Amino acid sequence: MKGTVLYGPRDLRFEDQPDPQIEQPTDAIITMSATCVCGSDLWPYRGLQPINGPTPMGHEYCGIVEEVGSAVRSVKPGQFVIGSFATSDNTCPNCHYGYQSSCMHREFMTRAQAPVLRVPLADGTLVPTPGVPSDDLLPGLLTASDVLGTGWFAADAANVKSGSTVVVVGDGAVGLLGVLSAKQMGAERIIAMSRHDKRQKLAREFGATDIVTERGDAGVDRIIDLTNGVGADSVLECVGTQESMMQAIHAARAGGYVSFVGVPHGVQLDGQQLFFEHVHLHGGPAPVRRYLPELIDLVLNGKINPGRVFDLTLPVEQVAEGYRAMDERRAIKSLLRP
Amino acid sequence: MKGTVLYGPRDLRFEDQPDPQIEQPTDAIITMSATCVCGSDLWPYRGLQPINGPTPMGHEYCGIVEEVGSAVRSVKPGQFVIGSFATSDNTCPNCHYGYQSSCMHREFMTRAQAPVLRVPLADGTLVPTPGVPSDDLLPGLLTASDVLGTGWFAADAANVKSGSTVVVVGDGAVGLLGVLSAKQMGAERIIAMSRHDKRQKLAREFGATDIVTERGDAGVDRIIDLTNGVGADSVLECVGTQESMMQAIHAARAGGYVSFVGVPHGVQLDGQQLFFEHVHLHGGPAPVRRYLPELIDLVLNGKINPGRVFDLTLPVEQVAEGYRAMDERRAIKSLLRP
Repeated sequence: MKGTVLYGPRDLRFEDQPDPQIEQPTDAIITMSATCVCGSDLWPYRGLQPINGPTPMGHEYCGIVEEVGSAVRSVKPGQFVIGSFATSDNTCPNCHYGYQSSCMHREFMTRAQAPVLRVPLADGTLVPTPGVPSDDLLPGLLTASDVLGTGWFAADAANVKSGSTVVVVGDGAVGLLGVLSAKQMGAERIIAMSRHDKRQKLAREFGATDIVTERGDAGVDRIIDLTNGVGADSVLECVGTQESMMQAIHAARAGGYVSFVGVPHGVQLDGQQLFFEHVHLHGGPAPVRRYLPELIDLVLNGKINPGRVFDLTLPVEQVAEGYRAMDERRAIKSLLRP
Repeated sequence: MKGTVLYGPRDLRFEDQPDPQIEQPTDAIITMSATCVCGSDLWPYRGLQPINGPTPMGHEYCGIVEEVGSAVRSVKPGQFVIGSFATSDNTCPNCHYGYQSSCMHREFMTRAQAPVLRVPLADGTLVPTPGVPSDDLLPGLLTASDVLGTGWFAADAANVKSGSTVVVVGDGAVGLLGVLSAKQMGAERIIAMSRHDKRQKLAREFGATDIVTERGDAGVDRIIDLTNGVGADSVLECVGTQESMMQAIHAARAGGYVSFVGVPHGVQLDGQQLFFEHVHLHGGPAPVRRYLPELIDLVLNGKINPGRVFDLTLPVEQVAEGYRAMDERRAIKSLLRP
């Protein structure tokens, strides 16, 4: 089998890899129906996050179960399944509290940008669909594996409720699906921060009511203006930089909620500033597994169409072009078909 | 009139001050029934927080209304009132959301360690009691002005609910009243971190079920042990140092809640660490005004006895000794009577 391996900044290779095998009785092997490139893959791709030697890539996946280990009970060969980017046993205390992405036996998936994948803790990680879905549903279902689940968590962690005024910082796929999620949760006003025409359009399609193109302090000033000097009830930080985080915190009202779901890179928060900002702060790797059943239902029932974030589809062998297109912001998100 | 003025580290004077007067139509003048020294007063007293010249001190107060400005409607001369350490109009959007300590017209009170006090925004800041309370209720009622309201906010912001496992970091008066508040909110287990015998006893009296004497990493290890490797549902950070903040964050379970109510001094939070800790974080100056009616009721009905935190009572002229006793940890909290 061939798979995707990052050797260094912008040195991505699709090359021979060992065929995935059952290693633990709790494993499953799936043949990929679709996989994709994540915004977070761009951090090491751009050399902004160090790697230790050649690193297999990919953590978003859906496909058909080929084989399961002897202890697997809840999925079986032939089923179509979607799993989280973080494995979970779904039984430990952290899972019980709904934080499956902090499962005590968590592993972060990698190696998913390939035609076949081994998934540890299959029972607690994978969710099967009622039948094998049609091809047109694949992009939407694939987003549930990470990017939709992460946007959904961003909205949930920012306490979005019916009637909320919401700001979304970041116009990547997660930010855009944060807009979609806020809309589903009943937000009345959704202000998307974006200076990119195509992404603005998709944000509006997903439910954004306002677009703010300014950034940093000027962006915050616009939000404060748009909210009559008060700030937003909920702010979704979907980037992970110091600037975006401060923008998010300043854009929230006193007592408002700020979520952060982009892995922070070089972000430092001053305790006293946070104190006087009076916001609620919650973030982390999205507990996608908690939301998977609901999100799969919404996609299968046609209530949401999150697959719209994929604006480039390539054979998985051309994964390097998928990265390049996202790196150069020619594509929002690249879908890869084996 | 004489009042308390800080001139520099440990240089506190009780000296002539102008008599307070109505300056705005929304002001009230009250004669103090009791005031006290706050843990936060110790930061500038110890020289750990710079002051700009001689600084009048004191922000906790209750007493009898002497005079009100022409626009004041909700309190009148002769009434006994308690107010928050932060003034509020109680009508602006921030107040409406329950964050009166971020009122758009907020002033932080000062000059309360004196026999007479001017309170701005009297209608939105002061709460009158049904009659003039008896002397034995004064200490408890006085705590509602800040330290009880702050402990209560700590428990509320840390999402303490019936059955919660709670950790309180800090055994000052706020931490101890955080224990009392958590108990009132139905916490099942309350772990107080303290290495001070007298404070441990009061913590137990207020509802603590366990005492942890270790600090820093060793303290966290004890909490993790006591919670079967999981961490606490709610952690109340009532100190404001880097060590106490990290102790609080590490002691919470994934998805747990950390509140912080001690003004942070030199605290820096690493974004990526916070991300992977997966906790909720909320803090700030306690919106005491939100809780005042409920807290006054609890004290008047004898349901709680927060006045127990005062273990030293002095005439206000001896305010300097009140500070010294707290600085040297001979007293938990000093009450001052005019």
